[in-house]
Amino acid sequence: MPAQNVARKLIEAHLEAGDMTPGEEIAIRIDQTLTQDATGTLVMQELESLGLDRARTEVSVQYVDHNLLQTDEKNAEDHEYLRTACERFGLWFSKPGNGVSHPTHMQRFGVPGKTMVGSDSHTPAAGSLGMLAIGVGGLEVALAITGRPLNIRMPEIWGVRLEGELPPWCSAKDVILEMLRRHDVKGAVNRIIEYHGPGLASLTAMDRHVIANMGAELGATTTVFPSDDAVREFLRAEGREDDWTELVADDGASYDAEETIDLSEIVPLIAKPSSPGDVVPVSEVAGEEISQVVIGSSANPGLRDFAIAAAMVAGRQTSSSVSFDINPTSREILTDLTKMGATTNLVISGARIHQAGCMGCIGMGQAPATGQNSLRTMPRNFPGRSGTKDDKVWLCSPETAAASALTGVITDPREWAADNDVSYPELGLPEEHSINTAMLVPPLPPEEATKVEPVKGPNISDLPDLDALPDVVEAPVLLKVGDNISTDDISPAGAKALPYRSNIPKLAEFCFTRIDDTYTERARSADTGHIIIGGDNYGQGSSREHAAIAPRHLGLRVVIAKSFARIHWQNLANFGVLAVEFTDPADYDAVDQDDTLRLENLRDALGTDDVLTVRNVTKDRKIEVRHRLSKRQVSDVLAGGLIPRLAAEEHPDEHRAEETVLQDSGEIS
Amino acid sequence: MPAQNVARKLIEAHLEAGDMTPGEEIAIRIDQTLTQDATGTLVMQELESLGLDRARTEVSVQYVDHNLLQTDEKNAEDHEYLRTACERFGLWFSKPGNGVSHPTHMQRFGVPGKTMVGSDSHTPAAGSLGMLAIGVGGLEVALAITGRPLNIRMPEIWGVRLEGELPPWCSAKDVILEMLRRHDVKGAVNRIIEYHGPGLASLTAMDRHVIANMGAELGATTTVFPSDDAVREFLRAEGREDDWTELVADDGASYDAEETIDLSEIVPLIAKPSSPGDVVPVSEVAGEEISQVVIGSSANPGLRDFAIAAAMVAGRQTSSSVSFDINPTSREILTDLTKMGATTNLVISGARIHQAGCMGCIGMGQAPATGQNSLRTMPRNFPGRSGTKDDKVWLCSPETAAASALTGVITDPREWAADNDVSYPELGLPEEHSINTAMLVPPLPPEEATKVEPVKGPNISDLPDLDALPDVVEAPVLLKVGDNISTDDISPAGAKALPYRSNIPKLAEFCFTRIDDTYTERARSADTGHIIIGGDNYGQGSSREHAAIAPRHLGLRVVIAKSFARIHWQNLANFGVLAVEFTDPADYDAVDQDDTLRLENLRDALGTDDVLTVRNVTKDRKIEVRHRLSKRQVSDVLAGGLIPRLAAEEHPDEHRAEETVLQDSGEIS
Repeated sequence: MPAQNVARKLIEAHLEAGDMTPGEEIAIRIDQTLTQDATGTLVMQELESLGLDRARTEVSVQYVDHNLLQTDEKNAEDHEYLRTACERFGLWFSKPGNGVSHPTHMQRFGVPGKTMVGSDSHTPAAGSLGMLAIGVGGLEVALAITGRPLNIRMPEIWGVRLEGELPPWCSAKDVILEMLRRHDVKGAVNRIIEYHGPGLASLTAMDRHVIANMGAELGATTTVFPSDDAVREFLRAEGREDDWTELVADDGASYDAEETIDLSEIVPLIAKPSSPGDVVPVSEVAGEEISQVVIGSSANPGLRDFAIAAAMVAGRQTSSSVSFDINPTSREILTDLTKMGATTNLVISGARIHQAGCMGCIGMGQAPATGQNSLRTMPRNFPGRSGTKDDKVWLCSPETAAASALTGVITDPREWAADNDVSYPELGLPEEHSINTAMLVPPLPPEEATKVEPVKGPNISDLPDLDALPDVVEAPVLLKVGDNISTDDISPAGAKALPYRSNIPKLAEFCFTRIDDTYTERARSADTGHIIIGGDNYGQGSSREHAAIAPRHLGLRVVIAKSFARIHWQNLANFGVLAVEFTDPADYDAVDQDDTLRLENLRDALGTDDVLTVRNVTKDRKIEVRHRLSKRQVSDVLAGGLIPRLAAEEHPDEHRAEETVLQDSGEIS
Repeated sequence: MPAQNVARKLIEAHLEAGDMTPGEEIAIRIDQTLTQDATGTLVMQELESLGLDRARTEVSVQYVDHNLLQTDEKNAEDHEYLRTACERFGLWFSKPGNGVSHPTHMQRFGVPGKTMVGSDSHTPAAGSLGMLAIGVGGLEVALAITGRPLNIRMPEIWGVRLEGELPPWCSAKDVILEMLRRHDVKGAVNRIIEYHGPGLASLTAMDRHVIANMGAELGATTTVFPSDDAVREFLRAEGREDDWTELVADDGASYDAEETIDLSEIVPLIAKPSSPGDVVPVSEVAGEEISQVVIGSSANPGLRDFAIAAAMVAGRQTSSSVSFDINPTSREILTDLTKMGATTNLVISGARIHQAGCMGCIGMGQAPATGQNSLRTMPRNFPGRSGTKDDKVWLCSPETAAASALTGVITDPREWAADNDVSYPELGLPEEHSINTAMLVPPLPPEEATKVEPVKGPNISDLPDLDALPDVVEAPVLLKVGDNISTDDISPAGAKALPYRSNIPKLAEFCFTRIDDTYTERARSADTGHIIIGGDNYGQGSSREHAAIAPRHLGLRVVIAKSFARIHWQNLANFGVLAVEFTDPADYDAVDQDDTLRLENLRDALGTDDVLTVRNVTKDRKIEVRHRLSKRQVSDVLAGGLIPRLAAEEHPDEHRAEETVLQDSGEIS
């Protein structure tokens, strides 16, 4: 047995099928699931479609952390649907106000050595505890809840060796920003990042959460850390030391790729508007005027992240031109922060203390004024994600955020400390955390659960019916977009759209509105279906499967892109949209919006070859595209999606009749 | 000199014109003004229209407490407009997150013996300090800021004698609910309520704030309390004892009407959905299931209101089926609450702690699910004000709210105490308040102020032009509504509409949508202008002048109602809408929606008689209506509103030319 790294140990221990060679499809048993409210209502609808009686995972938790503003009845009704669906299916329910899913899950449920899928792209945060935690589409979470394994292509394992110790005024956020500075938003696609080396010793489990969480911004499949003494210490403080097991790489373990970071050379870093990958040293942009500073989110969720800011502003006043917003990430953290006196220091300094949740990180309030700089400790600053069309959002550490809130301009915390003769604060964090489970509702016993009928408010629609992929698609390119289009661009979050997350026909009206607000109308009137052309890294960002279902509902049949982000690519297959890549990226320039494209003989072609020919009817020329679908996924796409495919397997007779009908009218043009 | 009550002393000391006989128009000098952000942007636009250089009041403060959700850039841009307009005109600016206007004003600026107008209907809360504080339309606040007196009809003074002491588990909220139980939402129209008697001794200044604040729900012009030792004690704790002066009624002072409340006979009371006047003992409705409890708002803003709830829930868990929302009313109160340990107790019990502001009270989030009961310590529960169309909002004391949050059903706190063997908590409130002025930006010095150009975001439109009232109005009744229509019904607040408060054309799209969502479209297509028929107490509730300007912008010319709420009636006159009352209320039944009505010879008729004849063209019959406009107000209405009238006075030549043109085409039909 060769020396193994942590990631391979985790996979091997859960392997149900396949060969652990990078690129090969494998099936992994899933122990835990995490859903949040923005994606969770669809998961519950999917569980209903799949006919689940009771969750078959060890732990499945539904969090409510995204839609907390409740500007009308829809949010409260969704919360009620989630609560009662959890009762029905045997899931845990974390009430609105309990906290952000990732830190709360880490505090209450995370267990070293376990696997988890979550319908949130920051699910990898649980890698901080030595878990294999992967962000996926909601449907794959639903399948995991029914006991099915997760199918993925085996990623490469990227070993990142940490050496040295962080200097004062730098923290975990600067480490992940350094990774983004080096590798940008696609740097870890098809990779699991595994941190190792002597530098780990100085990073707490919550520091590692920061790094694992925002690994999503590198495009990584996930991030893993070993389960060592730092993890044991965290679980002890949470009263769960019994859940700890050691999980470390074997001596001499190797990686598919290697990287080294000397922590002692890290400087305060900041991601400029509007990409997490556009990272520069804070000192390069110091002096820019700001109007808002927000501390919080799953990318800086720990008690220390708030406590360091509180210590810096204690006895001082934040700038009169800055709105200083604090979003506690969980009730536990707010309680400890308050007991320490830090909440008082924040309030006195001029902070606005908000309820525990994602808040502005998901565009739920806190939108800045047009063109004014907002500094945030959040993981993402895609254009418009803040709720403001022409926003200028920067991402940084709590240290940089607090220093800048005090001065009113972007400020290197080392400079601020030198100017004010301040040494790096000793925080004196509590030994024991203030554990409180009052807002975590446990699963009902099975005999009671079966009696529950989930409460569906009028805004919760059924999932749209999905018809099979026609054998011939001849349809117009309704939209041609550039590189790094995020799922926020495709199906925006925010306070206006998110209340409709359980109502696909209504949600579809928001598709691509930030890019082209004529798209939805044109899509509805194109009765041939339609095609979208994308650039590199199409569908990056949030895991929300709405970004696949909603355009699909509007008639999307095929996306041709230079490359896809992993979760969205998977979501497209799950909902029966054919996602293919230009074999020659230069062909991107050979297709224009409004061109009509034709793909023929799809049922045969997809099963036999990974290369397809696309005829540009308008320009009368041909291009080649490649799909990366497994056989399983080909079946899904041909059936119109995973749900119709599974339904067909359960009721093969009905399905055959349907398929016949579909093949009769198999061509749409 | 006869013995005087407090209200008459306040008026007499500020009387600039008129005779203090109830019903006569008087003019009062105004010392202070209060504006909040939902109404303040229009006030700033009006100050620009009026050509103000610098505020002429002693103190004028602009608060930002309503629109704090910031779901897109509009709120942040409005905040920036308000901030820079305050700089320009020499006003104080209270930053978002500093607190709700009424308690914050009381803490930092209230001075016994002073007068104040505020563009918020709960402005009378300052009566708790022995001030004469009146809620008015924004334009009248703007006029006060320019140094002009307030014109009102002299109200009756209603003396309410308080005897005895409140029993345990009852508090100030139950006193004002008792007034509403006795007198309903019109019970104090055209009256100032003055509390006096031995029962006052046991009510703190903040208790009195609760009672004065919600006197607005009785329709009172305002509420006054004496400035006595309780006021001195409050100002001392705020570090402002020097601002205290005694102001009490003379021995033997009399009142125009008299009432007595024996505090010792008060029981816990609750206003049922959906009127503050539908009050019953809590015991009558105990046991109803609830899904939400909200503590906060200017109707229960004091430290004790939160501290009593915290003491009740300390060491206990609120019901798992209840969302327990806490809206601190100011940073000062949040700081003291946190220092006391009460914030920690609330969080541990399951509370969601929100930012300091109005929040759900003005429909900014916290909307309950359709048909589920929400208990709130707020002042109003008009239908839909919560943001949910078919809401069920109840109004009660913090004691009733906290007991119910624990049990999950409406609960009489006395019963809960008996069941749990709890005695009424001693709160141990701090002797000194945590004063912190960091978020209060003082006026700029004049030489700097004149250099400031207020920053107007793209969503801040100019005020619409208002043309003169035609001599003949022949127009259809586009809407006929029932009794107690509130300004929330006319121009809704909430997270969807309020961001457009500075953009009248856009805001107008929301007019009456809760009652008839075809109104705005029909109004826009009626080029004759239109008429609205109302029942009793038309325009109750919020002072927002948008409820006059927005329908006016859509072509509203005349409102005929059984009776009007004071502030809205004044706002209609200010913006050139003719508000008249049926001389025989039975005639209400003789007019139907879509009837065409004709009013002739308005220029002469309004000036000479208070009775007008209205011909129902459709039904070919006549009815009589009466106006209550002063000569000054007749001029305003004929000119198309106060702003055109003042402009005409400053530029009489231009105006005469315009008027001629208007008279040429003076008939619209």
